[in-house]
Amino acid sequence: MIKNTKVNAAILIIGNEILSGRTQDTNTSSIALWLNSIGVKVNEVRVIPDIEGTIIDTVNYLRKVNDYVFTTGGIGPTHDDITALSISKAFKLEYEIHKEAFKILEAYYKVGEFNEGRQKMVWMPRDANLILNPTSGAPGFNVENVFCLPGVPSILKSMLGGLITSIVGGEPILSHTISLQTVESEIAKSLSNVQENNKDIEIGSYPFFQAGKLGVSIVIRSEDKSKIDKCSSEILEFIEKKKIEIVTR
Amino acid sequence: MIKNTKVNAAILIIGNEILSGRTQDTNTSSIALWLNSIGVKVNEVRVIPDIEGTIIDTVNYLRKVNDYVFTTGGIGPTHDDITALSISKAFKLEYEIHKEAFKILEAYYKVGEFNEGRQKMVWMPRDANLILNPTSGAPGFNVENVFCLPGVPSILKSMLGGLITSIVGGEPILSHTISLQTVESEIAKSLSNVQENNKDIEIGSYPFFQAGKLGVSIVIRSEDKSKIDKCSSEILEFIEKKKIEIVTR
Repeated sequence: MIKNTKVNAAILIIGNEILSGRTQDTNTSSIALWLNSIGVKVNEVRVIPDIEGTIIDTVNYLRKVNDYVFTTGGIGPTHDDITALSISKAFKLEYEIHKEAFKILEAYYKVGEFNEGRQKMVWMPRDANLILNPTSGAPGFNVENVFCLPGVPSILKSMLGGLITSIVGGEPILSHTISLQTVESEIAKSLSNVQENNKDIEIGSYPFFQAGKLGVSIVIRSEDKSKIDKCSSEILEFIEKKKIEIVTR
Repeated sequence: MIKNTKVNAAILIIGNEILSGRTQDTNTSSIALWLNSIGVKVNEVRVIPDIEGTIIDTVNYLRKVNDYVFTTGGIGPTHDDITALSISKAFKLEYEIHKEAFKILEAYYKVGEFNEGRQKMVWMPRDANLILNPTSGAPGFNVENVFCLPGVPSILKSMLGGLITSIVGGEPILSHTISLQTVESEIAKSLSNVQENNKDIEIGSYPFFQAGKLGVSIVIRSEDKSKIDKCSSEILEFIEKKKIEIVTR
């Protein structure tokens, strides 16, 4: 499934609260930064509602066209948490009590506190691999190339580290940023020339405001450090000619 | 195109910087909250890279299955800003200088400052409607049911108000939140019963931490206030029985 050294992923955010605007998603950024660091490039993010058919169809599409899929949300104890059931249906697996997860939560909660609501969290697709949760006990799970994580950002972050042995990344994606005291239109043409000379490098240009002044961050991304260096020196060359100031961000 | 009183939309975030995790998207939440207030429900959000073919295919799919599509990003002056060209191709329209946009930017910039880079921002699909930009001059544009906005959050926000005459919403989507000093597992079963009794209402349950204590916000959403009230009183009933404290957030 892995194509050469390029490994890619999709992130699937499941939750009405993101679509309504009530909650600001931050999990995309957490997962993407972590994936980059282990050489996995995020191709696509989708945010979808808590609707079983939509989850099933979207997961079944994304898992075919990506090396990995990471879902967030919908694995808690309430009626709107339908990710585990939907993933079971997507893979045509039984949705059942996961014995190992049951043991983990039985040990995690005090006697009498492992109630019916909490027991819902151990229902998973048959034979799913667990993703351990060092923050609040209830594990996530993994079936084939799909990894299901919770929606609460602090809990999700604490679980990423444990995934490192399950994900085979490619070359880490390196990036170099050059921040300038200028506006995009001043450098647009020169930057476009550099991109033309370096077609296999990703060069992004992002305006910012800092201390009341306008600036632009140029971000160069590639798996190949020597290509980043070449691209960077071409940029520094036109910056010097144009007498544009480099700033720290 | 408008189905009864239900009006829906998709948001399409265009930009490698979101997929790499470098930049945290906040535009989804801004657009979604604004759309809700005018009775448009967001069905789906996608984040895709600055790749022409991907933009064309995604826009052509989303515009068919949604009443409205809002794109953000890729309408600036640099080489990685390819939204206007891609939308032109998606609609099979000429990509050309928009005379009105040209006049706006010619007047906006000082003499001699409307340079080649900035002139790129007036290239648009033929006969596009402009979306005025009170913050930084360069307008967004609209073709049929697709509205193209910039990626910079403060600029985007300032442009939403001007769209109000172009969007025909349905009944505004109302929401009511009840925040409780409890954990989800305590209320999961009762809340599930309320959802069973009120199938056409969206009830969400969202855990939070506040002042060192765990809590849950129950969010009820519907276009019909009387249904929200009915649902709310059923929730308050079980809360009282369970002696759970209501908290302010």
